[in-house]
Amino acid sequence: MRFVSFATPELPTPHLGLVRGGEVLDVDLAGQVLNVRVPDQMQELIENYERYLPGLQALLTRAGERRLSEVKAFSDTGIAHKLEAVELAAPLPRPRKNVLCVGLNYSEHVRETAEVRGRSAEPPSEPVFFTKAPTSVNGPYGTIGIDPAVSSEIDWEAELAAIIGKTCKNVSEEEALQCVFGYTVLNDVTARDLQARHKQFFKGKSLDGSCPMGPWIVTADELPDPQHLDIALRVNGVVKQQANTSQMVFSIARLISVLSQGMTLEPGDILATGTPSGVGFSRTPPEFLKAGDVMETEVEGIGILRNPVVQR
Amino acid sequence: MRFVSFATPELPTPHLGLVRGGEVLDVDLAGQVLNVRVPDQMQELIENYERYLPGLQALLTRAGERRLSEVKAFSDTGIAHKLEAVELAAPLPRPRKNVLCVGLNYSEHVRETAEVRGRSAEPPSEPVFFTKAPTSVNGPYGTIGIDPAVSSEIDWEAELAAIIGKTCKNVSEEEALQCVFGYTVLNDVTARDLQARHKQFFKGKSLDGSCPMGPWIVTADELPDPQHLDIALRVNGVVKQQANTSQMVFSIARLISVLSQGMTLEPGDILATGTPSGVGFSRTPPEFLKAGDVMETEVEGIGILRNPVVQR
Repeated sequence: MRFVSFATPELPTPHLGLVRGGEVLDVDLAGQVLNVRVPDQMQELIENYERYLPGLQALLTRAGERRLSEVKAFSDTGIAHKLEAVELAAPLPRPRKNVLCVGLNYSEHVRETAEVRGRSAEPPSEPVFFTKAPTSVNGPYGTIGIDPAVSSEIDWEAELAAIIGKTCKNVSEEEALQCVFGYTVLNDVTARDLQARHKQFFKGKSLDGSCPMGPWIVTADELPDPQHLDIALRVNGVVKQQANTSQMVFSIARLISVLSQGMTLEPGDILATGTPSGVGFSRTPPEFLKAGDVMETEVEGIGILRNPVVQR
Repeated sequence: MRFVSFATPELPTPHLGLVRGGEVLDVDLAGQVLNVRVPDQMQELIENYERYLPGLQALLTRAGERRLSEVKAFSDTGIAHKLEAVELAAPLPRPRKNVLCVGLNYSEHVRETAEVRGRSAEPPSEPVFFTKAPTSVNGPYGTIGIDPAVSSEIDWEAELAAIIGKTCKNVSEEEALQCVFGYTVLNDVTARDLQARHKQFFKGKSLDGSCPMGPWIVTADELPDPQHLDIALRVNGVVKQQANTSQMVFSIARLISVLSQGMTLEPGDILATGTPSGVGFSRTPPEFLKAGDVMETEVEGIGILRNPVVQR
């Protein structure tokens, strides 16, 4: 299944939607109509997915082969919307902790970074974890604001993100993917000047709005092999990054296993799995985002983020 | 004022307490008794402190010069406890984002780190920010569990922490301290082997239980000069760190101002302001914590954390 957090003029607080065929069903209201137990928020869905699964399946069973808007119980009550008629927030509009991230997890990106920063071109022997502030989270089509007083080097990083579905600690690599609720697309927008100036990455990774995500979470059962997905980023239609998740240095299972050693992971945790080569700062000459640019971030089998850049 | 989050056998979920003279008053229940509006949770208190201040002052006015337990309205209802009879949680038992931290913020600590790690002994030109996971938060007297399968180099870092009280962004150094709700003591317990192995600090800083805090938050009005406080850490009674917050490389005001550039800080954010020299890994020979050790972390004008180390 595909789940969004969406808002309408009538219900402006982001709430849970089920996406099918270009339409989105208001899960909570559909549950009221069909008298089944389903949640209103993505975090609640993730924390108790197995409990809610029968209710969700009841919604889909009612639709059968029809479009959601063709189901009388949904269309009469106005709870099946065209996707383009609603506003999509980040799937988890306010994560309960910082977004977990990994740096230098595609070897070509390690190489391009090494050439600019004078570091080793060898992939790291262990994952390099850092975080982005929850205040950086942005919607899949949200604007990326550039404030020249803060940074003049805003760069892109297309990433596949895994959403943790179970509380887990000290999990083995073999068990790790069982802890994943689903996957989404994430752009780890980075202020390169701040990243370098403050040594540790956190500050340069955490400007407001610098973590667009979405458009939805695809549940793990629909992406049984997350390590063979094309990933791409385009600026104004020009391809800047193009790779495949098979090229990761550390697999998603390995990242989760290592991260969970001594540290509890929780439902709703977001793990961005690193970016491939083709970021702006390593280009000749370096390229950074400017007002008027539009970034598209795409992961095969999930979808596309589209984020316009504006001057703040 | 001094605020704790505390639990009793009757009310085991940590809730807000007001500390005075070795006693703690259950704020929510006292508010019900006196029919004034006060919160039940620290996060709610911090977010709306000015709204709740009249109610809190009404509680203190009722007590006057008496001990809390001598006030009939409090003693009859059993809502004034001896501090030693309650269990103290971290003042913010579950922060809404990662704990914000700064590395290398005392020059003697920069020097001792440089000698071991072969880095520059010059203080950094800009603050080095990183974070600790919310799952690392521990109570002021909580045990520090050591799991040899995860880390064999658990080290101490005594710190003064500032608690943000207002939503703020792009604040100047001059305005920054107005954004502080209060201060607490924090021990940034660190797995040195993981910190080095994963390059970025996050993983080595985020093991479960590795962020004891408290015992309480002292409101900013009671600590008008947070830059002249003695800070110390003892292991089994032996002084390991002893310094003064006047020795910080970047003042608290400067840290908040820099951190807030382009990044919104929010009420309840915790900013650990760095540790002085005397940590274990830079000693000759290096010293790490072992089961049976007891750490005491003290900041003048606030209080003492006391954390026993146990084998997991």
